[in-house]
Amino acid sequence: MNSEAHTSAHMAARLSLALVHYPVKGRQGETMASAITNLDLHDIARAAKTYGVNRFYVVTPLEDQKALAGKIVSHWQNGAGSVYNPHRGRALDLVSVFSDIGEAVSEIAARGHASVKIVATSAVPHRRSTGFSEFKKILENPGNEGVGFLLALGTAWGLADEFIEAADYVLAPIYGQNDYNHLSVRSAAAIMLDRLFGDARGATI
Amino acid sequence: MNSEAHTSAHMAARLSLALVHYPVKGRQGETMASAITNLDLHDIARAAKTYGVNRFYVVTPLEDQKALAGKIVSHWQNGAGSVYNPHRGRALDLVSVFSDIGEAVSEIAARGHASVKIVATSAVPHRRSTGFSEFKKILENPGNEGVGFLLALGTAWGLADEFIEAADYVLAPIYGQNDYNHLSVRSAAAIMLDRLFGDARGATI
Repeated sequence: MNSEAHTSAHMAARLSLALVHYPVKGRQGETMASAITNLDLHDIARAAKTYGVNRFYVVTPLEDQKALAGKIVSHWQNGAGSVYNPHRGRALDLVSVFSDIGEAVSEIAARGHASVKIVATSAVPHRRSTGFSEFKKILENPGNEGVGFLLALGTAWGLADEFIEAADYVLAPIYGQNDYNHLSVRSAAAIMLDRLFGDARGATI
Repeated sequence: MNSEAHTSAHMAARLSLALVHYPVKGRQGETMASAITNLDLHDIARAAKTYGVNRFYVVTPLEDQKALAGKIVSHWQNGAGSVYNPHRGRALDLVSVFSDIGEAVSEIAARGHASVKIVATSAVPHRRSTGFSEFKKILENPGNEGVGFLLALGTAWGLADEFIEAADYVLAPIYGQNDYNHLSVRSAAAIMLDRLFGDARGATI
């Protein structure tokens, strides 16, 4: 492992993901609680495991939704799924289900981080948007060595404005080739992790 | 739009995607036909639209599965889905359902390409693996101006070996930070398109 790869692995290990189901925006921009989507948990856990992220928090205040998320995870960790496909369990081991983002922040702090910074994501530009290269520099900054970063992804029509306003950073939107910016949260999470922690951009195979 | 962005959009427009349900590998490595997954169509169509890809072919020889794929697409193009979320229809407009990869190749040729090259993908390295940077150079090569490229993604446990052997190119696996290489096909498609056609790697917001 070269030193760039080492740095990148070290940075990934200081970052956790949160998939937020409340507060998020509904179709008309109203603040709502969304339902758990089975494949969100699978896809994002698999991407988190691939890129060496520390933890993946599923955030929902709804008791039945917390129970559903717990059931999905344990099916693949200990149930029939663990026999059918053990790789899924390894990814879903990263998941913890919490009622709100504050519980995730507390858990990160309890694991020895001096402070925790929340990084909101959005499909539209924000006056405080931080580009991917700039955010990598923040992660690499020796002054941030003790900081745990929590990258928050919104379900439904995205994180509620009040959540974004309260965040420490807002990561820039992902742009492709045009104005169509309707990636799924699963795709967006995968692309973000690849931009931040992917190998040397395919320079070598 | 700067010239780099222009080139990139031009390259994306010469590339189409194929999501292959046969021939793919089963859990034991056997060649099988897999079932359509609703969210594969949605997520990959949305990523294809975001990155300006030409077409998205869903390939399955099973009649009931072709009908299911057609139903998913038309629900969002003309049905109740088109009212609920018109952005989905714009993405799913890219989809055509075909029985085999040859039909997709014929359609690309019929749209005026002098030749069509099939690019297989795989989660494991292949003796002919082409890295992402190298493949970008192939796309940019003026000698390939008339070539339509078809990037084939495998469902289930990946494209069957005979499909990979017959392909013109084999794109390198996506590496993250470790040996865990079990991304979903939805995540892998999104990351591949971002590596090939994403904006200037977040250098600017």
